[in-house]
Amino acid sequence: MSRFDTISFLTDYGTTDEFVGVVHSVIRQLSPEVRVIDITHEIPAHDVRHGGLTLARAAQYLAPGVVLAVVDPGVATARKAIAVEVGDGESILVGPDNGLLAPAVAMVGGATRAVEITNPEFQLAAPGPTFAGRDVFGPAAAHLCNGIDLLELGPEIDPATLTPGMMPITRIEDGNLVAEVLWTDRFGNLQLNVDPEEISALGDRVELRFDGRARTGVRHHTYAAIPTGEVGLVVDSYGLMSIAFDRNSAADELGIGTGDEVILAGIGDEARSLGVVTPVTLKEKP
Amino acid sequence: MSRFDTISFLTDYGTTDEFVGVVHSVIRQLSPEVRVIDITHEIPAHDVRHGGLTLARAAQYLAPGVVLAVVDPGVATARKAIAVEVGDGESILVGPDNGLLAPAVAMVGGATRAVEITNPEFQLAAPGPTFAGRDVFGPAAAHLCNGIDLLELGPEIDPATLTPGMMPITRIEDGNLVAEVLWTDRFGNLQLNVDPEEISALGDRVELRFDGRARTGVRHHTYAAIPTGEVGLVVDSYGLMSIAFDRNSAADELGIGTGDEVILAGIGDEARSLGVVTPVTLKEKP
Amino acid sequence: MSRFDTISFLTDYGTTDEFVGVVHSVIRQLSPEVRVIDITHEIPAHDVRHGGLTLARAAQYLAPGVVLAVVDPGVATARKAIAVEVGDGESILVGPDNGLLAPAVAMVGGATRAVEITNPEFQLAAPGPTFAGRDVFGPAAAHLCNGIDLLELGPEIDPATLTPGMMPITRIEDGNLVAEVLWTDRFGNLQLNVDPEEISALGDRVELRFDGRARTGVRHHTYAAIPTGEVGLVVDSYGLMSIAFDRNSAADELGIGTGDEVILAGIGDEARSLGVVTPVTLKEKP
Repeated sequence: MSRFDTISFLTDYGTTDEFVGVVHSVIRQLSPEVRVIDITHEIPAHDVRHGGLTLARAAQYLAPGVVLAVVDPGVATARKAIAVEVGDGESILVGPDNGLLAPAVAMVGGATRAVEITNPEFQLAAPGPTFAGRDVFGPAAAHLCNGIDLLELGPEIDPATLTPGMMPITRIEDGNLVAEVLWTDRFGNLQLNVDPEEISALGDRVELRFDGRARTGVRHHTYAAIPTGEVGLVVDSYGLMSIAFDRNSAADELGIGTGDEVILAGIGDEARSLGVVTPVTLKEKP
Repeated sequence: MSRFDTISFLTDYGTTDEFVGVVHSVIRQLSPEVRVIDITHEIPAHDVRHGGLTLARAAQYLAPGVVLAVVDPGVATARKAIAVEVGDGESILVGPDNGLLAPAVAMVGGATRAVEITNPEFQLAAPGPTFAGRDVFGPAAAHLCNGIDLLELGPEIDPATLTPGMMPITRIEDGNLVAEVLWTDRFGNLQLNVDPEEISALGDRVELRFDGRARTGVRHHTYAAIPTGEVGLVVDSYGLMSIAFDRNSAADELGIGTGDEVILAGIGDEARSLGVVTPVTLKEKP
Repeated sequence: MSRFDTISFLTDYGTTDEFVGVVHSVIRQLSPEVRVIDITHEIPAHDVRHGGLTLARAAQYLAPGVVLAVVDPGVATARKAIAVEVGDGESILVGPDNGLLAPAVAMVGGATRAVEITNPEFQLAAPGPTFAGRDVFGPAAAHLCNGIDLLELGPEIDPATLTPGMMPITRIEDGNLVAEVLWTDRFGNLQLNVDPEEISALGDRVELRFDGRARTGVRHHTYAAIPTGEVGLVVDSYGLMSIAFDRNSAADELGIGTGDEVILAGIGDEARSLGVVTPVTLKEKP
């Protein structure tokens, strides 16, 4: 009887090579009944922060089970391979200890236990050391589904010693909110690290300053409600503010993207301004 | 006991973000045994016609069950979320009422019932309204697989009131056939909205006029039979005429693509010409 | 009771069209319980050699069962559709007889039986002949999983008559090793057709000549151990030598890619040189 029946799988492997299929195949042979759900494999190569934020957005929607995440520029070096238990065993995240798992772990309430994956009994012997998804992480995920105890994978480590994730936070400067683009999605919408409540004092029209320019952003409930050519400010599907155009890419229209700074300021003679900062979180499911 | 065990899934979500994986995860939790088959998620963003034609091509090959299709530029506006039953319950198509589902519904014999999806009991509460695949359509598909009645999703609506799909039709002008490229496939083959019988009177050599130029297209049974550099006219795998090169992209060679007009004309002094138009259909499985 | 429960699936279909989803759907209806694992569908269009090498790399990691591989520029011509049994029935590879399957078949020990797929009973009737994955290969794979005997698909053929795969081999010239880039992976690492033992006599520093230029490559155990800007020589996850940079694409940095020639030469006044050539193999799992 298996303990977990679902592995949620995220990497920067891309799908042009056989990497993803090979990991699926390895898992299929070790734990035949488990279902593997691909979250995405198009994390930009080696971009740990991007992978961590993507995993955090997905985290609360994932099926309980094992989360297998590999964005691993330090493969085969001294960086640890880890398995992190959350929710007192509801799920276990498996991946490199480089900050990739941290935002998702925080998102679902923090780690309850963690181990370093070292036991060769649960790894594939390999002709070369550079494909840990196939040889280390994938097998660990499969064996966890089969019911081996977390502590069989290797020595327990203090979750507090794990590499933290980097989550940019907003700050107030001169009554304005200095924010950052967390994510440019497929449609060109720009997710900011801004909770709607952080800018409620600014009203429905907000000055957006970026890259030496300024545009007026107007709050709307849906993308389609944004008038053509206008810059919209929409609460996105994760509960964060996003800059959007109707049926057009805000990233292309404005020429900015992930990691860029955006300052949100009040508009008018008696311009509204901001006093306090609320820490940003990806909103949990109500 | 589930009613349906397969969901066929098509969107314009792309696979670089977590959207597709999150919908899979939501379905996995609501209806654990159902198998989700990805048709494609690379419909160009917001391109409802493209999505509708892709779904229509696939329709007759899909497993009976639920078809979940989301290309939805009007997400969270007044556009209806709908579920359309076909074949007296053999399958149910779920998606936005914007013409996306219409060509596939027509392809498989038309709607037998339809409802607007409104019942919040079968939706996820969400931190923002812009991800209906996750919050509305995906859950509806999963619950239908679990056996809830179509009418539990919301009020019944007359299928005749649904937004129709747009299918460009050919016309005769001066004895020539004015056609359109329906689809440029991965290999650069250009599918026309032309049934082979429509041009049988023109013989095996046909003048193709497009973009102010003309080329001679020659009928062949296979791509590989087209001599190098020659423009081939091949009955494609859906039974429509396509313009093709052997091991080369016709789209690249000719510089045309989806939506472009192509005129098919007779060749020779006593040029053959056309008198009647037969309506085009994607050919059904024999 | 099914005979095989897994189909490993590789094509050049891409995922922007519905091709892959349609083949999954056809298999789902013919053999509902079988699991289809996508290896990759991004083999460059018509690139049989690329597909063959990718399949060979994956081969030893695939679940026993059916391997369905389609890169088929000669679809619907006289090229044979074949099914090749390996390991006395442990697995069966299905695809066109154009060399695509040959490297993988060799990798797992050679063919034990082979047939030409001709029996229309196990094919879909089709409106056009150009989608053999849907109409011929996919159905054959599904029926094999259901337990039909290999010989029911069509007449037995001598495996020795199958089209061989092309595997470039190294040669010694003037004491140097003339090699070729077999594969440029997602990360820009350049896999050579070179076994580490072939160049052990050259030591840890090797001159790499390509495209009229020369760079020094240094042996390292991991990508991350390569100093920034230095060209690394790393034994990759398949046991072959690869040219790599740390967190950078060697393909981009050096301006070379798959199919390009690379000469490996000794360095120093009393430059080491090579005498014998060992045939290259993808390393088997230890």
